[in-house]
Amino acid sequence: MTSTLVLLRHGNSEWNQKNLFTGWVDVRLSEQGVAEAKRAGELLASSGLKPEILYTSLLTRAIQTANLALEEADRLWIPVKRSWRLNERHYGALQGKDKAQTLEQYGPEQFQTWRRSFDVPPPVLDDDSEWSQAHDERYADLGADAPRTESLKLVIERMLPYWESDIAVDLAAGKTVLVTAHGNSLRALIKHLDGISDDDIAELNVPTGIPLVYELDDDFKPTKPGVYLDPEAAAAGAAAVAAQGKK
Amino acid sequence: MTSTLVLLRHGNSEWNQKNLFTGWVDVRLSEQGVAEAKRAGELLASSGLKPEILYTSLLTRAIQTANLALEEADRLWIPVKRSWRLNERHYGALQGKDKAQTLEQYGPEQFQTWRRSFDVPPPVLDDDSEWSQAHDERYADLGADAPRTESLKLVIERMLPYWESDIAVDLAAGKTVLVTAHGNSLRALIKHLDGISDDDIAELNVPTGIPLVYELDDDFKPTKPGVYLDPEAAAAGAAAVAAQGKK
Repeated sequence: MTSTLVLLRHGNSEWNQKNLFTGWVDVRLSEQGVAEAKRAGELLASSGLKPEILYTSLLTRAIQTANLALEEADRLWIPVKRSWRLNERHYGALQGKDKAQTLEQYGPEQFQTWRRSFDVPPPVLDDDSEWSQAHDERYADLGADAPRTESLKLVIERMLPYWESDIAVDLAAGKTVLVTAHGNSLRALIKHLDGISDDDIAELNVPTGIPLVYELDDDFKPTKPGVYLDPEAAAAGAAAVAAQGKK
Repeated sequence: MTSTLVLLRHGNSEWNQKNLFTGWVDVRLSEQGVAEAKRAGELLASSGLKPEILYTSLLTRAIQTANLALEEADRLWIPVKRSWRLNERHYGALQGKDKAQTLEQYGPEQFQTWRRSFDVPPPVLDDDSEWSQAHDERYADLGADAPRTESLKLVIERMLPYWESDIAVDLAAGKTVLVTAHGNSLRALIKHLDGISDDDIAELNVPTGIPLVYELDDDFKPTKPGVYLDPEAAAAGAAAVAAQGKK
């Protein structure tokens, strides 16, 4: 028996537009992001895919994206589960910083290391920073374990237990699952699904607002490569992500 | 220890505007309803109330209302549970019918009996009707038990078990609970909370889009009467509901 997993990266946010590192800072979708989310819902509806349960991070931009897409697809009523384990990578001390300015200040090598190295996290974000989530009630249960910075490796380490404990269980029950999350939490999941190496994952960019559909076997392995519902727009979107901060 | 329960009736829908009996027909908010939902979120935010968990029905207009209100109050991230047991009363064969026309056709006595009697349901809705939910996947688990018509009494009988099994459990854990639902599922809950008699409940009208706040004791009894966050607008709204179909 196979099951269907749909991955959706949130649309353009207010801080994507300003070219700032966002991470766990809880910014909203831009107008463009709202349009992308609705378009994702249209793609879902016209594909005939019918998500039966929704997973989101605890960040507003992912939840807005899911709500807008499901409203468009007439499936707002499906059950929802949320977890911080699907959050974007915590960008540490880079949160709130301008990407182009950071590139100029630290040089292309350090910049690219922070953005795309597998296991080098940016410097820790101070709890007193205005961009810290140390005092955000939604993470209160995590206590001192709440991240202050993360590498992609650390994202995988906190995401995978949730994949196994919750998402995979719904897939095993035969449900079509929609996961609406972020560039790096989705890269973490795709790395796991497709068995991408620690080196090669640097080259993988996930476009915003275009559903990526996997058919999984009983062992949760893809039976074939994941398919974007709009492959042309997906390729252009991935190239745009790769070019970020390069101006 | 006391806990806080916030009840919110969805805003004006496309069919409220057309003066049609809606029930389980899954219509959307009107533009006015969208504005009401956002206003509800502003009232929540300015009151300082912080819902920690959301309950909704399976109907789009209630879910839209909750999403818009929580977005406005910056609390989209709270956990969500949905249940058909919070749905609007199933209006049976009246679903899809014009209220004024029904009043004219059947006379004021029969009309008022169907709208406000405690235990007289309208005629059963045929499964082949375009307004039937007999083939709606979201109710598939109910099988033949899915309602084809309901009185307020029947709404209470399917709502209360969920109140006890889920909502009251979250209240007992000290959580501030937001329930976003419908005129009749909320009348059912308010009747239970306030101990209103089967006769007197006919006079209770719940305005749309204005949060109603209860402080409950350990036995889930109100420590004082429920308070609307905008009492003046609530009184006007309740009067407007009472006047429906009376033109």
